[in-house]
Amino acid sequence: MATLGLVEYADAGPEVRAVYDDIMATRKVDWINNFWKALARDPVTLRRTWESIKEIMRPGALDPLTKEMIYVAVSATNQCGYCIASHTAGARKAGMTDAMFAELMAVVGMANETNRLASGYQVEIDERFLTSAQAGASVVREVSTQ
Amino acid sequence: MATLGLVEYADAGPEVRAVYDDIMATRKVDWINNFWKALARDPVTLRRTWESIKEIMRPGALDPLTKEMIYVAVSATNQCGYCIASHTAGARKAGMTDAMFAELMAVVGMANETNRLASGYQVEIDERFLTSAQAGASVVREVSTQ
Amino acid sequence: MATLGLVEYADAGPEVRAVYDDIMATRKVDWINNFWKALARDPVTLRRTWESIKEIMRPGALDPLTKEMIYVAVSATNQCGYCIASHTAGARKAGMTDAMFAELMAVVGMANETNRLASGYQVEIDERFLTSAQAGASVVREVSTQ
Amino acid sequence: MATLGLVEYADAGPEVRAVYDDIMATRKVDWINNFWKALARDPVTLRRTWESIKEIMRPGALDPLTKEMIYVAVSATNQCGYCIASHTAGARKAGMTDAMFAELMAVVGMANETNRLASGYQVEIDERFLTSAQAGASVVREVSTQ
Amino acid sequence: MATLGLVEYADAGPEVRAVYDDIMATRKVDWINNFWKALARDPVTLRRTWESIKEIMRPGALDPLTKEMIYVAVSATNQCGYCIASHTAGARKAGMTDAMFAELMAVVGMANETNRLASGYQVEIDERFLTSAQAGASVVREVSTQ
Amino acid sequence: MATLGLVEYADAGPEVRAVYDDIMATRKVDWINNFWKALARDPVTLRRTWESIKEIMRPGALDPLTKEMIYVAVSATNQCGYCIASHTAGARKAGMTDAMFAELMAVVGMANETNRLASGYQVEIDERFLTSAQAGASVVREVSTQ
Repeated sequence: MATLGLVEYADAGPEVRAVYDDIMATRKVDWINNFWKALARDPVTLRRTWESIKEIMRPGALDPLTKEMIYVAVSATNQCGYCIASHTAGARKAGMTDAMFAELMAVVGMANETNRLASGYQVEIDERFLTSAQAGASVVREVSTQ
Repeated sequence: MATLGLVEYADAGPEVRAVYDDIMATRKVDWINNFWKALARDPVTLRRTWESIKEIMRPGALDPLTKEMIYVAVSATNQCGYCIASHTAGARKAGMTDAMFAELMAVVGMANETNRLASGYQVEIDERFLTSAQAGASVVREVSTQ
Repeated sequence: MATLGLVEYADAGPEVRAVYDDIMATRKVDWINNFWKALARDPVTLRRTWESIKEIMRPGALDPLTKEMIYVAVSATNQCGYCIASHTAGARKAGMTDAMFAELMAVVGMANETNRLASGYQVEIDERFLTSAQAGASVVREVSTQ
Repeated sequence: MATLGLVEYADAGPEVRAVYDDIMATRKVDWINNFWKALARDPVTLRRTWESIKEIMRPGALDPLTKEMIYVAVSATNQCGYCIASHTAGARKAGMTDAMFAELMAVVGMANETNRLASGYQVEIDERFLTSAQAGASVVREVSTQ
Repeated sequence: MATLGLVEYADAGPEVRAVYDDIMATRKVDWINNFWKALARDPVTLRRTWESIKEIMRPGALDPLTKEMIYVAVSATNQCGYCIASHTAGARKAGMTDAMFAELMAVVGMANETNRLASGYQVEIDERFLTSAQAGASVVREVSTQ
Repeated sequence: MATLGLVEYADAGPEVRAVYDDIMATRKVDWINNFWKALARDPVTLRRTWESIKEIMRPGALDPLTKEMIYVAVSATNQCGYCIASHTAGARKAGMTDAMFAELMAVVGMANETNRLASGYQVEIDERFLTSAQAGASVVREVSTQ
């Protein structure tokens, strides 16, 4: 039912197959989920999206499990059904236990609540939060995510 | 400029002071940020919100730094200026480096992008994601976040 | 700083003045807030938006105070600074007390929390909620909001 | 299909049963809807969420029907399918007629429209809205939602 | 399953039929989609919503295809399943090719990503963007969308 | 005030300068706006984000003006102040007139309204919308956005 249909491996051209192969090799899986098959009708977007995710999700200053849980947090906040299902599966594979999931959801729920309390009550940002940002910014050195 | 004004410690009644004291003791700080002062006009909500946050944010299956970063992820997704400022400060205090912040933002940005690609392309949830959830659900045992 | 500038009454043409006059007469005020002045560069949208709001916000099955509070609830959920400020003022004028505002915010905060818990936990809609909707729908009679 | 499965009453431990019993007694119903069964895998979150909702939704400065309609307004704005279904049912039970629902939706729709017009046109908040907030804030007295 | 049920043409009163007839005539179709049938229980909202959409979507400074694609962009950002399906169909009918849809989604995805990077990094608006708005606003002349 | 500070050209290393130079050359401007200076503390994200935007925003099946207006539509829907300001300026530079902006906003506003009416009324997707998607998907051929 995907808007442009799904491109199966058998029907894919070499450019799409190369991305599919890299997804399976990188993730150590033997199948391609629907998200990629739906994007594959547009090989340029398929490649760019995969290359970006591969770069962002690899181990760095944050470990893969933390990154997958952040992905679930955003997806639950946006209420994206597909993304909640796929990234909850991804986080489980990366080691998320039931207890970790439950705490993740508790934080996501609370953050969504206090975001609206802060906005609804028209709370002004404390000077200290601004100056600490400025202080942190005073030493301009580059950071790398890799 | 907060809608109901800010309740300073000196002007607070005993119920509000008790919450303020607990916030400062729990967080090991000597000041109260505007969010709590704005809520304090409604002591019932002040107390409930603080008790909930205290319960949710304490170390459990997830450590406090991870929880603060999840809070920032939600706040950035919702674009709540106050919450981004206050929880970025909170995450820094809990140990978030510049490199960790940069990776956090990269994941948040990407998740917001792919959430819309998945929805916009009307991608159906893969059977495997559903069955893995069912499999995970087959053993019904309670988990505790504490 | 509004994108297309603000149209002051003195500079407005007859079509815009007619809307401004109706806004002031309907709301029993002697000034026009920036929202309308910003829209006024596009008289067609100004007129349509005002006529729609006038029709929607007048007393009906719901009273004007309830409607203004619902407007604040949506604006806080969307975190629209302008709208929170203007409709909180509107709700106060319609009779919202500090205690009512505090309860309104408590509900808005909680709803935003449980919305994400329901989505994040991938909770399926109970049969009973669906059948009650169907039951309610079985008698097809028209309702009027006026 | 809920991520951690559903905890039925027969399978629940005493802590979960106590919450289920209180939900049924408070709401005068003889069944538990899926939202609570999904949360029940984490008894701490189940208890905290229920206690918060019970405190927030009871009659106060706002009546239960108004609170349920505000809940529907937030859920429709966030487009949470489960929450729209469950709280529409809750609002109906609290007395919402078809005509009230129709007006509620009209306000929710319009607020979502003008929220974007205000932001998109980059409208600045009127001085009067700010000063009225300050004026309202000048008398610092506590309010209770109970 | 729509909350108030669907009003079929055969069951509709003259006020609803008049709107249905105008929808079919304007869009050159011989059927009414569920959105209108669901609204039709409230003829006032049905009429106002249709009149607004008819006015907004007709050819003006922007052509109908561009308008339909903007509608899809908003619906994908909000993750409204019904709206994505109906307006993607509408955009196709107005001439959107697969390649145009793919580029539309790419822009929508990227904008949702950078929106959060801008907010999350707490980026301040450049003076030049503000002054260009002011400059554009210095000549106050009315524009018409028709 | 950006979280990690802004990296000015004079303080930038060669990797960041290379991106800055490409931004100015591609856009035919002689300055760098704050968004890029804020990202520049993380050169990997700076490069990836710029390369993605350059690929997405260049002329293809959609022209640059249409793409900039879609960017504004998403930013207004998300209510991202920075993004509304920067992309409204970008769209103006690409040729957006006041009348085009006004129509763009009218569509964005209306889409945000009907998105919530469709969700709030729990409208089911029409079979015809689904089958037309399936029909469109039956011929699986790749499309390119370039």
